[in-house]
Amino acid sequence: MNLESYLEKNADLIDARLDSLFGGLPGELNKASAHLLCAGGKRLRPAVTMLAADIVKKGISDSVIPAALALEVTHTFTLVHDDIMDGDVVRRGVPTVHTKWDEPTAILAGDVLYAEAFELITLAEADPDAKVKAVALLARTCIDICRGQHDDMSFEDRDDVDPYEYLEMVGQKTGKLYAAAAAIGGILAGGNVNQVAALHDWGYLSGVAFQIQDDVIDFMADSSKSGKDRASDLREGKKTLVAILAKEKGLDLSKYRKESLSEEEIDRAIAELDEAGIIDAVRETAIDHVNRAKDMLVIFPDCEERRLLGEITDYFINRSF
Amino acid sequence: MNLESYLEKNADLIDARLDSLFGGLPGELNKASAHLLCAGGKRLRPAVTMLAADIVKKGISDSVIPAALALEVTHTFTLVHDDIMDGDVVRRGVPTVHTKWDEPTAILAGDVLYAEAFELITLAEADPDAKVKAVALLARTCIDICRGQHDDMSFEDRDDVDPYEYLEMVGQKTGKLYAAAAAIGGILAGGNVNQVAALHDWGYLSGVAFQIQDDVIDFMADSSKSGKDRASDLREGKKTLVAILAKEKGLDLSKYRKESLSEEEIDRAIAELDEAGIIDAVRETAIDHVNRAKDMLVIFPDCEERRLLGEITDYFINRSF
Repeated sequence: MNLESYLEKNADLIDARLDSLFGGLPGELNKASAHLLCAGGKRLRPAVTMLAADIVKKGISDSVIPAALALEVTHTFTLVHDDIMDGDVVRRGVPTVHTKWDEPTAILAGDVLYAEAFELITLAEADPDAKVKAVALLARTCIDICRGQHDDMSFEDRDDVDPYEYLEMVGQKTGKLYAAAAAIGGILAGGNVNQVAALHDWGYLSGVAFQIQDDVIDFMADSSKSGKDRASDLREGKKTLVAILAKEKGLDLSKYRKESLSEEEIDRAIAELDEAGIIDAVRETAIDHVNRAKDMLVIFPDCEERRLLGEITDYFINRSF
Repeated sequence: MNLESYLEKNADLIDARLDSLFGGLPGELNKASAHLLCAGGKRLRPAVTMLAADIVKKGISDSVIPAALALEVTHTFTLVHDDIMDGDVVRRGVPTVHTKWDEPTAILAGDVLYAEAFELITLAEADPDAKVKAVALLARTCIDICRGQHDDMSFEDRDDVDPYEYLEMVGQKTGKLYAAAAAIGGILAGGNVNQVAALHDWGYLSGVAFQIQDDVIDFMADSSKSGKDRASDLREGKKTLVAILAKEKGLDLSKYRKESLSEEEIDRAIAELDEAGIIDAVRETAIDHVNRAKDMLVIFPDCEERRLLGEITDYFINRSF
């Protein structure tokens, strides 16, 4: 099966399960909790959990579906709370929870999802010891994500963020949840220490590559697909890898930090960054992470799951939205 | 040992453990997470977890200390988020987290504590199956607490809240966490279904009694001890059991809903409520819960832990702050 068909089929399964668990429940708090969770999405993290389980033990993925859901629920809880902190009004084409309801309800809706995620781990069919390990890993991962979000916010007030700090931050904010998605699949399938570590590192490195690609996408974003204006990071002076490397090369991007940018201005910024070798450097960093990620999978036999996980990594840096 | 000495000794132990785990860590997010957690308190929930473990299996409580900490950490996370929602500025004699830092940091600090709680459950020394059950119960409890907080907020806009809805709300908001504190101690100690259910129900009923007593305390509160102005619930028109029963009896308390109340006005309100039998009715409801709570413990042999748990229930409605 090709990756696109696999992801589509899997997203249908995940959507149906999420809908049966969280859709149509009465009460505003339930509705607010389900709002973003049941608004679709590619369901990449659940797919990773299921592929990781199957790479360890072919055919076991059905028994880890609740844990796969837990990863999506965790991701959604972080989005609901992040949207409050970042003041974002639209997400996945729908109003954010604190916009549609209010901040207290959004805090609580995120908190409900948070607990649901841990409950879902306990509902997987697996050895109790493995479930305890999965709970511990998910907990540690949530703490890392919070730290990443906190660092991301604190970077806004700093002018001296270096590329290593940036990579550490996106590693916490995005890498760790992909790492957990893969490792939890492996743990629940009864994987050994080496297998779980390889899956974890594959997820971490792939997640970092995913986030770096986001910086590049910003320059070419078609807002109807990405939901973001083209070059919004540039306008807002966000501390992306592009901005950090530009600063290190002595490029002054502050002139682009304004209310709106014309297509000409954006093209000029890209030309400037291109000439200084920054776009190439960012792409190279992403590709380096992709290669290291895929290297992690070589301990597994050459199978469909290994191919699909590798294709997910490639997709992370080849996507344009 | 009498209850006061037991609680003091236990609070010292819990304080020391919390301090070694969360105190003095670098970074603003760690400081914000530890702020309220390490600001003292009676540590009643951890005491309940440890007594519940020992009532099931004498001498086992040391092995459940991480889970006892998890209950305090959970309680603190709910306070940090509730303080944002309720706009409260002082708690336990210190500025609330969103006041000392800001709202985004307080949301994240609460989220960090939330994950720490689940991690702590996994660190208890117990059968893995029991730990999975404890995680599932804690998750369900957190969802119930969120629902209770949401109901509490929605009651503010309603004039038709009845006593049953009120008891359900405080059951979710306060009862369920005491229920979980006791049940998790019992589960991790290897208690059977009847023992765990008895501990759960003891905690629930005791917690409800605790919250009802809060309504009464409001009228006699010494602000230096409770941190609240005397009769602040009355001034704010809060939907307490007192207010709900008063409305049912046709008493109009709206005249007391104003910026400040003199001691004479408060005394007049109390006299009015007393004459209508409302103070008695509230006390009776609390005492009824206390008696039913203590009845739950009769399945256990007459031991020190049973006596102390019973004394905790009594303390809940005899405390004056």
